[in-house]
Amino acid sequence: MATTTGHTVKAFDDDLRTLRALVSEMGGRAEAAVTDSLEALVRRDLDAAARIVEDDKKIDALEAEIERQVVRLLALRAPMADDLREVLAAMKIAGVVERMGDYAKNIAKRVTVLQDAKGIEPLSILPAMGRLVSEMLREVLDAFAKRDAEQAVEVCRRDRAVDDFYNSVFRTLLTHMMENPHTITASTHLLFIAKNLERIGDHATNVAEMVYFAATGRQMAERSRGANSVTTEN
Amino acid sequence: MATTTGHTVKAFDDDLRTLRALVSEMGGRAEAAVTDSLEALVRRDLDAAARIVEDDKKIDALEAEIERQVVRLLALRAPMADDLREVLAAMKIAGVVERMGDYAKNIAKRVTVLQDAKGIEPLSILPAMGRLVSEMLREVLDAFAKRDAEQAVEVCRRDRAVDDFYNSVFRTLLTHMMENPHTITASTHLLFIAKNLERIGDHATNVAEMVYFAATGRQMAERSRGANSVTTEN
Repeated sequence: MATTTGHTVKAFDDDLRTLRALVSEMGGRAEAAVTDSLEALVRRDLDAAARIVEDDKKIDALEAEIERQVVRLLALRAPMADDLREVLAAMKIAGVVERMGDYAKNIAKRVTVLQDAKGIEPLSILPAMGRLVSEMLREVLDAFAKRDAEQAVEVCRRDRAVDDFYNSVFRTLLTHMMENPHTITASTHLLFIAKNLERIGDHATNVAEMVYFAATGRQMAERSRGANSVTTEN
Repeated sequence: MATTTGHTVKAFDDDLRTLRALVSEMGGRAEAAVTDSLEALVRRDLDAAARIVEDDKKIDALEAEIERQVVRLLALRAPMADDLREVLAAMKIAGVVERMGDYAKNIAKRVTVLQDAKGIEPLSILPAMGRLVSEMLREVLDAFAKRDAEQAVEVCRRDRAVDDFYNSVFRTLLTHMMENPHTITASTHLLFIAKNLERIGDHATNVAEMVYFAATGRQMAERSRGANSVTTEN
């Protein structure tokens, strides 16, 4: 059981550092998967796409490892208050990052079916949208590492730009489909990719809320979360 | 700190029972939201749709309550081994159920834009798909309540039927869009609804894996999870 002796405190801090490093590694991998999947899409690079799908297993393995560490840490150190909140936040964040990895994998899987898609304009907008959500992911993990509640709020504010992007892609694709019914299949896949990116942005916002709560013990105010931002078709 | 005296064991059991009841209530609400959202869609019932969107707040509030209980329980009882695993599973399951509620809310939000959609055949398939995923959700929560690993495996097997449904709806909608370009907007919304249902099925599978792990301490075998099942466009 945990006591307040210097020895135990140090052991707990070491464990927490290990846990944070694992979350950080997991986040870095998910971030790369998002950027790489869009690059593979634009370049029609099937090998890169297959690699992203394969690499998602490492993200899943990291989540499992984080859970093992959390169970071990709770059983061994029985942390209280802020420390307990932080350990649980790490587990929850890992769960969300795993899902982000899945979305990136899903984008990579569509590279094959989109290989022959040509002249669909929104294809050129998607990488920029992808960069935006990867940046959000990087920043929110940075906020977690630094326990920076203010930075977490900033991430939520950026989600509005993602929604604007999504709405624009949605409208463009629908118009494109109506004018070129033969591109409907390809356009539908692009629509799902845009939706995946929008969801990754939403998830970054969710993580930001967890970081905020872990850092302050309070829920983030509705206003900061940009609760009024909606997507056209949402 | 937890001891093995009868008094503490009983207190822990009571807490665990409370926690399970909250997860069960949350799951029941999410299950109803899924079924109701499709009914609202078929009946073009805007009031019902608005109610589902509003009621999602209660699902979110239950998740927050579950987290508070988990933190309290971990701090107060410091459970070990199986008990610890079960408490963490409750928190993780609540996180997934919250997301399922969001998907149902998202379906309800589309009722407005689909109000004038007529004669789109897949609309009649979606409620059956909705029933299937609500059933999966009910069964997996039942498996959690009973710590029944076998029932959890059963739920995963059913996910294949959801994927078949989805593939069928996807193909039907794409054909419909090509033949009737003026229904592209409405069809796109139906496509997203089908995708949401498919995701709810996936999430039920995720919960089943958590239930299996909490009950047995082992990961569910890849085969049982139906890992080979894929959706056409996935």
